Amino acid sequence: MVTRLTDSAVYAHLWSTPALGTVFEEHARWQTWLDILVALARVQARAGIVPQRSAEIVAEYARVERLDMDLVAEQTRRTSHSTLGLIRGLRAVLPEQAREHVYVGATVQDLSDTWFGLVMREVGAQVWTDLRALEASVLELARRHRDTVMAGRTHAQPGAPVTFGFKAATWADELRRHLDRMREGRPRWVVGQLAGAVGALAFHDHDLDPLELRRAFCAELGLGDPGVSWLTSRDRIAEFGGVLAGICATLARIGGEVVELQRPEIAELTEPTSPSAVGSITMPHKRNPEAGEHLDTLARLARSSAGVLLEGMVALHERDGRGWKAEWVALPEVCLLTGTALATARTLVEGLEVHPEAMRANLERHGDRMASERILGALSARIGKHAAQELLHEVLAPSVSAGTTRDLAADLATRGVATADEVREWIGRPPVRAAGAMVDAVLARAAAARATETTEWT
Amino acid sequence: MVTRLTDSAVYAHLWSTPALGTVFEEHARWQTWLDILVALARVQARAGIVPQRSAEIVAEYARVERLDMDLVAEQTRRTSHSTLGLIRGLRAVLPEQAREHVYVGATVQDLSDTWFGLVMREVGAQVWTDLRALEASVLELARRHRDTVMAGRTHAQPGAPVTFGFKAATWADELRRHLDRMREGRPRWVVGQLAGAVGALAFHDHDLDPLELRRAFCAELGLGDPGVSWLTSRDRIAEFGGVLAGICATLARIGGEVVELQRPEIAELTEPTSPSAVGSITMPHKRNPEAGEHLDTLARLARSSAGVLLEGMVALHERDGRGWKAEWVALPEVCLLTGTALATARTLVEGLEVHPEAMRANLERHGDRMASERILGALSARIGKHAAQELLHEVLAPSVSAGTTRDLAADLATRGVATADEVREWIGRPPVRAAGAMVDAVLARAAAARATETTEWT
Amino acid sequence: MVTRLTDSAVYAHLWSTPALGTVFEEHARWQTWLDILVALARVQARAGIVPQRSAEIVAEYARVERLDMDLVAEQTRRTSHSTLGLIRGLRAVLPEQAREHVYVGATVQDLSDTWFGLVMREVGAQVWTDLRALEASVLELARRHRDTVMAGRTHAQPGAPVTFGFKAATWADELRRHLDRMREGRPRWVVGQLAGAVGALAFHDHDLDPLELRRAFCAELGLGDPGVSWLTSRDRIAEFGGVLAGICATLARIGGEVVELQRPEIAELTEPTSPSAVGSITMPHKRNPEAGEHLDTLARLARSSAGVLLEGMVALHERDGRGWKAEWVALPEVCLLTGTALATARTLVEGLEVHPEAMRANLERHGDRMASERILGALSARIGKHAAQELLHEVLAPSVSAGTTRDLAADLATRGVATADEVREWIGRPPVRAAGAMVDAVLARAAAARATETTEWT
Amino acid sequence: MVTRLTDSAVYAHLWSTPALGTVFEEHARWQTWLDILVALARVQARAGIVPQRSAEIVAEYARVERLDMDLVAEQTRRTSHSTLGLIRGLRAVLPEQAREHVYVGATVQDLSDTWFGLVMREVGAQVWTDLRALEASVLELARRHRDTVMAGRTHAQPGAPVTFGFKAATWADELRRHLDRMREGRPRWVVGQLAGAVGALAFHDHDLDPLELRRAFCAELGLGDPGVSWLTSRDRIAEFGGVLAGICATLARIGGEVVELQRPEIAELTEPTSPSAVGSITMPHKRNPEAGEHLDTLARLARSSAGVLLEGMVALHERDGRGWKAEWVALPEVCLLTGTALATARTLVEGLEVHPEAMRANLERHGDRMASERILGALSARIGKHAAQELLHEVLAPSVSAGTTRDLAADLATRGVATADEVREWIGRPPVRAAGAMVDAVLARAAAARATETTEWT
Repeated sequence: MVTRLTDSAVYAHLWSTPALGTVFEEHARWQTWLDILVALARVQARAGIVPQRSAEIVAEYARVERLDMDLVAEQTRRTSHSTLGLIRGLRAVLPEQAREHVYVGATVQDLSDTWFGLVMREVGAQVWTDLRALEASVLELARRHRDTVMAGRTHAQPGAPVTFGFKAATWADELRRHLDRMREGRPRWVVGQLAGAVGALAFHDHDLDPLELRRAFCAELGLGDPGVSWLTSRDRIAEFGGVLAGICATLARIGGEVVELQRPEIAELTEPTSPSAVGSITMPHKRNPEAGEHLDTLARLARSSAGVLLEGMVALHERDGRGWKAEWVALPEVCLLTGTALATARTLVEGLEVHPEAMRANLERHGDRMASERILGALSARIGKHAAQELLHEVLAPSVSAGTTRDLAADLATRGVATADEVREWIGRPPVRAAGAMVDAVLARAAAARATETTEWT
Repeated sequence: MVTRLTDSAVYAHLWSTPALGTVFEEHARWQTWLDILVALARVQARAGIVPQRSAEIVAEYARVERLDMDLVAEQTRRTSHSTLGLIRGLRAVLPEQAREHVYVGATVQDLSDTWFGLVMREVGAQVWTDLRALEASVLELARRHRDTVMAGRTHAQPGAPVTFGFKAATWADELRRHLDRMREGRPRWVVGQLAGAVGALAFHDHDLDPLELRRAFCAELGLGDPGVSWLTSRDRIAEFGGVLAGICATLARIGGEVVELQRPEIAELTEPTSPSAVGSITMPHKRNPEAGEHLDTLARLARSSAGVLLEGMVALHERDGRGWKAEWVALPEVCLLTGTALATARTLVEGLEVHPEAMRANLERHGDRMASERILGALSARIGKHAAQELLHEVLAPSVSAGTTRDLAADLATRGVATADEVREWIGRPPVRAAGAMVDAVLARAAAARATETTEWT
Repeated sequence: MVTRLTDSAVYAHLWSTPALGTVFEEHARWQTWLDILVALARVQARAGIVPQRSAEIVAEYARVERLDMDLVAEQTRRTSHSTLGLIRGLRAVLPEQAREHVYVGATVQDLSDTWFGLVMREVGAQVWTDLRALEASVLELARRHRDTVMAGRTHAQPGAPVTFGFKAATWADELRRHLDRMREGRPRWVVGQLAGAVGALAFHDHDLDPLELRRAFCAELGLGDPGVSWLTSRDRIAEFGGVLAGICATLARIGGEVVELQRPEIAELTEPTSPSAVGSITMPHKRNPEAGEHLDTLARLARSSAGVLLEGMVALHERDGRGWKAEWVALPEVCLLTGTALATARTLVEGLEVHPEAMRANLERHGDRMASERILGALSARIGKHAAQELLHEVLAPSVSAGTTRDLAADLATRGVATADEVREWIGRPPVRAAGAMVDAVLARAAAARATETTEWT
Repeated sequence: MVTRLTDSAVYAHLWSTPALGTVFEEHARWQTWLDILVALARVQARAGIVPQRSAEIVAEYARVERLDMDLVAEQTRRTSHSTLGLIRGLRAVLPEQAREHVYVGATVQDLSDTWFGLVMREVGAQVWTDLRALEASVLELARRHRDTVMAGRTHAQPGAPVTFGFKAATWADELRRHLDRMREGRPRWVVGQLAGAVGALAFHDHDLDPLELRRAFCAELGLGDPGVSWLTSRDRIAEFGGVLAGICATLARIGGEVVELQRPEIAELTEPTSPSAVGSITMPHKRNPEAGEHLDTLARLARSSAGVLLEGMVALHERDGRGWKAEWVALPEVCLLTGTALATARTLVEGLEVHPEAMRANLERHGDRMASERILGALSARIGKHAAQELLHEVLAPSVSAGTTRDLAADLATRGVATADEVREWIGRPPVRAAGAMVDAVLARAAAARATETTEWT
């Protein structure tokens, strides 16, 4: 039953991607859960807890397409238990000899937390790949537009020149830090859980070393061993969600920049579109910054789900259903939103249309005022910084009110602090030398990092 | 494609109800959207904008089962437009004569905001009914246990006696305030939207009074007229979400009380369960307060979605896709969570097992200390309030540390402030007279309100 | 010790107002707390619990300037008790005969929740007054600019015309709904608390009717009687915070509009400023939309504090220090932020500079395309709505890409669907008739409400 | 003007610590800001931008005690500028020859973001020290109570045995991960800002390499160089806040455990208290888990402020006052709350009273049922896991309903699956062998980490 609009076949492309579907789509998720049960049976067979043949049978039969999911659903409701429906559904299709040999000693979180570990591994890998691809596109923007001068804007007011490459470099710098976070956090996140009833693993505590069993179980699935049960230590989950929400926020920052600079009154950037896209039905001329806006939407929702995960850290005793059930909703959600945001951002950045001529025109429209920082610099050396500042404030304030552009060189010459030619020379100085140097620094650092790191998330 | 666990057939019962399904389930939602298009065609026919016969045809064909939803989905993706896929899907099945007469002059939010109005009407009605039913159960608890004495607890420490009826009365009091909020907010929420491109309704502005058309459109659907376009005035949505999240919080408070008082060490309350329920696989003796916990889970998620709606109020210009797309996710979500929470709470409260004997035993276990407030009251009248307080603090502190129960009457007699018999008389005074009176007051107020208000939400 | 930047003498004007200071400033708050103790002594004197003369003495001595606040602080830390320090400080200055007659039977929340009731009354009154004053200014903007045509913008793209008056009317409409919420919520918020240890009022339960005492206590302070103790029923607080955060969100919406429309590239609105204001030190020409931005800042923080209050509703047993201590921070905070936001918004709106000529110029810059909704309306009547839409999309799409303005009349004439003169007539139709009618409707509704309601919050 | 209760001299100890005061207290903050100006003058002197003598003079005069803070405040309000008041206040006391040589080329965020870098360095260092000290105490608890058997509780229901040392080990494990996060994040956080008007450093761009100046400026203050201006790259701030809020959440988890286990009905843990503490005025026998509760309060507020910082990442263009002003409030707040929480938690854990006898008694009170996981393990090996589970469920369910304790050994013997002696042997097996091994693992890992890492945060 699809009650969430995010799952609607018509709108799902806004809230998920095919790659994310391989992790979260109902069928795929059930299969992953069954794979976890298979891994458990296998390591238990090796440890002599269940017969080797049973583990083989389980591996053969634990296929979601074999299960009667109606039965699974019915038994889940009937038992009010999160996994017993699945177990009964699986046992119903297993040959009798193996029926006792599934889910031995395990509990819900052994299954669902281990799934979380796998989710973080798979989604983390997608995020890593997409982040690096996006970084590459953004770096290319930075390189190409290293010297594309445009108005820097503070408080939404044009202030002094920057370059578009510099702007892109600050995006790249932020993305690179996210890559660092992803790399550093991985060992904390990509772990399994085998905790038993209360974390003490008592079920298996007589016959063998249960910690060894856990290590083998985690290794079988390609996960790290957690060292100690983490049934109510939810910082791993909260941290992962927080990093993802941070990534979404960066993408929303990029998107917001496009939304604003795509205003026709500014027209410095344009989102890619397709010929079949319709911006507005009643206003057929509209071309909307949909991707830019959507990145903000996704970031809001991701932030909200990450908040739920952070709250979930305050868990009680040895198991606390309140936070853990909320994680069932919020962790996949933040993954789905982030993966979608990355795909959206990649399309946006890869196809971004940059209009250097509009950037230059906008800058020039504001006239000499945009050189005020440079003039202030030069004038400060001559009459002192604060004197220069007050003088410029005095000279420029009326022009702001009047909305007109003054001949600053003439004005300042009148004041006797410099000749008009001097002022014009100051205005003519290259305004963004340092901006270019910062672009170079970002490019160099990213190149060095990209040269040494793996393309896979490890 | 089901990617959200909340939509999984196996777990959907934790995140929705059949009644909510009639509003939000994919098929039902599409039909409601089509019904809105039908209503628009009808009032436009009456206004002479489209032929009467076309409106009839639209009403006949605008059935979700007639539509090719794959086409709708494909066209939605192709046009990157939220409703054009649906319109094309509908036009594809319409006889040619009516094809031009659907969605005339309307835009996305005319459809989706009007749907929001209907959602708030339908969900609001369910909430009203469930809130009143829950209130009735809680009032019945308050009445039945008006004099069931138990330990009042502050900071999780038993302090002085209350009655369970008093506790329930504070729940009822809170629920009643939610009913007041629901009643007061309804005119703000249950409205339609017909705004056109930018809210100015210019499409229809030549031939007729577009405001009259809007009134008729809203009336056709049983919705109020909004007075002015509210494309970026999202306070209605945010308020509705906030009230619902508040309701969830109250239910989580009730749930939390049950979780704690169901601890076997306290054992004053027990959740209803069913014979087929399994608390724990590895600990077959467990009986978990699942409903109580789940109410907290639902409240967390509802609070989170309500926060998204509040943030969405800060919208830009005449339409802002950032907040509105987030509402598409968050408004249904908070509705689904709240409806589920109410159903969960009703089951919990209706079947709640109350153990008066355990309540009394727990109270007595703490001995005369639980009468400290009464003794303080009586002693204050004799030696002054602060002197009495310091004396009692002195007498009782050691017993707390020692974990023992002292003979307070003897102790105080030793101090010469009262005879042991006097102290025993104070201890013996009925401790909860005022609590009972407050129960009566709550019952009376609720009875008066329930006698005059409608059972339907109006 | 000032550790919060919001309390810094240098920045306090950004985070509070003089009027709010009369409620929250340290000295004022202590005096209000003492006043509550005085009120308690008075009603207890009337009820015969303490001597009449003692109540008079308490009233005389319970002045914050008499207290040794160092002693209060020291005793607060020493006892780890929230109010005992204050009580000891007060008793230290009281003549001996009255020393036993303060804070009789009361507990922390009796003091702090009653203070909350007074806070909500005082802040609510300020909010009511400021909201109404702001509404008046916004209504005046709506009236004055009823027909000031400007570009309506959707997704930050100019779409079709609106009027600035219409835009202001949607603000006014939203403010009016906040006034409705303030009026409706008042009886729930402006109440006192007298609950005793666990809400059952046992302290006073022997000698008199404690509910009568509570009624008298509340009445003495001009507060409503709560009916039942609300020690852990925190919906009142959460609702008040939510309404205030909603008000801030509306103000942030107004502020955001100004920030964006003050961009020099748009230049349709300008914030008021003062001659002594300095936009930027290094860019002396800058004139920043500070108030507009700050409204967004305040709204974010208010939303955050309101979230804490909503979370606080999930309280445990008869008293729960976790949420209540958080309220001590979050409720005043949301009040301070909202009061500051209202003052900021009033200044912003009252001095707002509107530039009708820029609005018209921006509209005309986009040429006939801005009439697309009207042309679509007219053309739909002739060739069908969807045919018209597809034709317009075809005609206009190239112009969007090319960034040029086409002669739409000529283009459409070429297609043979209308003569150029017909199209020009459509383009020439008054575009905002309905917008004006909506302005009128909002003005009329507000006028009616303002004529009947009180200027004081009651 | 103190309007925030957190700044009240009476309550400040709940919301700050003396160590935090050295960073955030008004006087200290202003001095740090002045120190940043001194550092700027020094490196500018070295670069030949200002005279060496001026830098010396600035260093001598830039003392907060020399400044007229009323003037600073007045000028701040007058100019509506965040730092100009301070600069004017400083210039007013400077000898004329140095007056032009302060704040040359800098802007607000150069000052305030550099202060943020220093704040993160100082607070980070305090957090590091406190986290390690707390970890040491928690490890000591884990070691001492490695074998102190107690009931593990899931869903607030006693389930199977754990040890208190195991519980503490999961706390230590979580704290250790926070230490890892603190170490990894430091290079991202402890950086300065020198960006100029729009991040391009144009002020200094003519005479020298401004990036070299920035490196020198950061180095002068012991901060890292950011590589590129980060005026709207706020991920550093958001990440720091998120890590701190996560730490608070862990402490709240510890606190919550104490609150619940201090219930007299459970009585397994007791918070330290002092003889002068007063739990309740009206209930003198109360001993409240104040620290435990307060940790939850602090975590809520910290989470809320961290959310503001995360939202602030979505910043616009080259400077965005909306998020940055919110950071001014939220970053110090989360620091103050976390530092206070750590101090509170240290006191709580260091003085925590553990009651092994109560732990054992509670476990025994639940009888053989607490061995169900072990019996299930043993029985599974004999009759199959699911058969065992169903059998135990059948046997134990009635006893749960009845609230009685059955003789499990006899019951199971009756069923013929094992002899009573066998069952008794299973029940008698050491239940927490693996728990002890996990404690050892946590201790070993922490010891290894502590042996190699620095006691200072580097």
